[in-house]
Amino acid sequence: MDILMGVGRAGLKTGGKPDILVVHLPKTCTASFLFTKNHFKSASILYSQSVFNGRVRAMVINSGNANCGVGKDGLLHAELMAKKVAERLEVDEDEVLVFSTGVIGKPMPIESILSAIDSACSLLEPLDLKRASEAISTTDSFPKYDFLKRDRLEVFGFAKGAGMIHPNMGTMLAFVFTNAEIGHNIIERLHRDVNERTFNSISVDGCQSTNDAFGLISLGLYRDDIQKVSDALEDVSISLAKKIVQDGEGATRVIKSVVKNASIQLKARLIAQAIATSNLVKTAIFGRDPNWGRIVASAGSTPFPIDQFRLKLYIGNHLVYDGKVHPRAVEGARKYLEESQEVEITLDLMEGKESWTYYASDLTYDYIRINAEYTT
Amino acid sequence: MDILMGVGRAGLKTGGKPDILVVHLPKTCTASFLFTKNHFKSASILYSQSVFNGRVRAMVINSGNANCGVGKDGLLHAELMAKKVAERLEVDEDEVLVFSTGVIGKPMPIESILSAIDSACSLLEPLDLKRASEAISTTDSFPKYDFLKRDRLEVFGFAKGAGMIHPNMGTMLAFVFTNAEIGHNIIERLHRDVNERTFNSISVDGCQSTNDAFGLISLGLYRDDIQKVSDALEDVSISLAKKIVQDGEGATRVIKSVVKNASIQLKARLIAQAIATSNLVKTAIFGRDPNWGRIVASAGSTPFPIDQFRLKLYIGNHLVYDGKVHPRAVEGARKYLEESQEVEITLDLMEGKESWTYYASDLTYDYIRINAEYTT
Repeated sequence: MDILMGVGRAGLKTGGKPDILVVHLPKTCTASFLFTKNHFKSASILYSQSVFNGRVRAMVINSGNANCGVGKDGLLHAELMAKKVAERLEVDEDEVLVFSTGVIGKPMPIESILSAIDSACSLLEPLDLKRASEAISTTDSFPKYDFLKRDRLEVFGFAKGAGMIHPNMGTMLAFVFTNAEIGHNIIERLHRDVNERTFNSISVDGCQSTNDAFGLISLGLYRDDIQKVSDALEDVSISLAKKIVQDGEGATRVIKSVVKNASIQLKARLIAQAIATSNLVKTAIFGRDPNWGRIVASAGSTPFPIDQFRLKLYIGNHLVYDGKVHPRAVEGARKYLEESQEVEITLDLMEGKESWTYYASDLTYDYIRINAEYTT
Repeated sequence: MDILMGVGRAGLKTGGKPDILVVHLPKTCTASFLFTKNHFKSASILYSQSVFNGRVRAMVINSGNANCGVGKDGLLHAELMAKKVAERLEVDEDEVLVFSTGVIGKPMPIESILSAIDSACSLLEPLDLKRASEAISTTDSFPKYDFLKRDRLEVFGFAKGAGMIHPNMGTMLAFVFTNAEIGHNIIERLHRDVNERTFNSISVDGCQSTNDAFGLISLGLYRDDIQKVSDALEDVSISLAKKIVQDGEGATRVIKSVVKNASIQLKARLIAQAIATSNLVKTAIFGRDPNWGRIVASAGSTPFPIDQFRLKLYIGNHLVYDGKVHPRAVEGARKYLEESQEVEITLDLMEGKESWTYYASDLTYDYIRINAEYTT
């Protein structure tokens, strides 16, 4: 009951690295897929959305070309990729999903891609998470994968992503598998729930991609407690999501923005997001500057009122502001920022019981360099 | 019937530059003030909001200190500033408004400030727009003011702002005056309307300030056609707003984002804003890269659906995409980006009659330098 994979080379990436990944599941699996909410969607996303009906047997992913903004040819090309996989693996065509990631607006060299899929299908081997992540990577600087085993329960996955990272889908590609059974009646709800707290709670640049997808695939080999399965899925998903932030274009720090004791969860979430995605906060963290003024200013910018004379703001463990500033704590926070790879900012609203955590990368010279010099 | 001004030096800015501005109106004027929607407001904003009742006789503005995040002392300090001006100019205390701009979280040296207000009030002279703008500037690299005369109608104003610039108030200080009469029953509606299309349609970094205010003051010297007055107010306001974007921290280009032929105005506005505020679009413009893929991806990221096979995207006059890409136009657009200080991006949705224009600066190494090195 192994998951198999094969890689191919269609010349979409420089240096002849693998740019085609085919994943062959041992049987038709119950699955849930969340696709980008961007209205300018990749043709591959449009194709997969239209054929997916809760079951999957195989997936084909190309990196180096987004199959997006290329007119209606893109839809035909996605269909041809699915047909080729279905034919070679002898599976139903509507159980094959297609994903693409890379540059927007370049026509797909479909003949090379189909021939690379051919090679990939003829050299199948057991799924190697690291190699799978590498095959779908673009500007990533390291592969993103994780594996977790709790008693009999196994959850594992791989992902890619470093830019155009912002919620409304995690803005990347991620595939998470479990050997446990998750019923088709609950898999989508459970998946959405995990997604909100993981891939939808990260940001690199606030820019939403055209090609995102996050798949959850249940191999259904045995039954386990659903809460235990859900917890493990969340753990693997947040691990993958954090790797994406850590590899955010030009990033030198991961910012963990925590809002505690809010009256309602949406308020905690929007404020945590406002802090983590503020360009001024992100540049301050890059400058190792405990600029708490920018943090509270971003916290005040959501539609939700905050009480500036009551809230408490911590940078690391340093209480820098609680209605008034604590200069000695600010100096402690400066040292903390210099020394910590992951920077935790905690805003305690002192008004309720709801909390949310949001992850983002800092904003650096290298982010500008990468994105000002990346040519169309 | 001159508007008078006086400047003072309280040592809030380095180099001994004026950091106190007092404006003395020749009579009590009908006025409208729009304040930042940020919930972490400057004490000066809280004070002015609480006393303002549609009439103004004098204003005092300090630069170099935001009077924000300093506890309840801030409210007392704002009140003391108003009291001092009222006493010296012999005007009603509740017709004096107080504004502050500068660093968040530093206590105000109130004695120096009151004594600088004293000096300012004893050396009044006719309003000089350039000097007024300079006195309220912080990180600005040039003063922002404009004057317009149409027949008997005069509209003029001054402003400051270069960072923490994003809608929900223009995120800056701006004061616009007219000699024409605007009734107290319509001034606020007219003001909000002008504000939406001007200061609320600009962005430097997507970060909303704690200290914004935009005042509209009618000297009421004669009556004129209200549409003519409104048009002139919009012209002066957009001129000031564009100067703020042009002086955006680290900016090398002004991005003018136009969405045309949308079904409803809100859709045109949100899409124009999404394009202009996308970090990926802003870095591409800095890199003189006609990366139309990023533009359409940002256009697709709002809640409004768009038809990717029907819309037309122009960079300058170059039609780069209309369901498919036009490589020769992309090369033309590259040249256009290299040569133009103001870069116009036009997205024609081909579905209705509504349009919106939004201005933003590009995102550059200097933005990072300024904001990573600006210390608390």
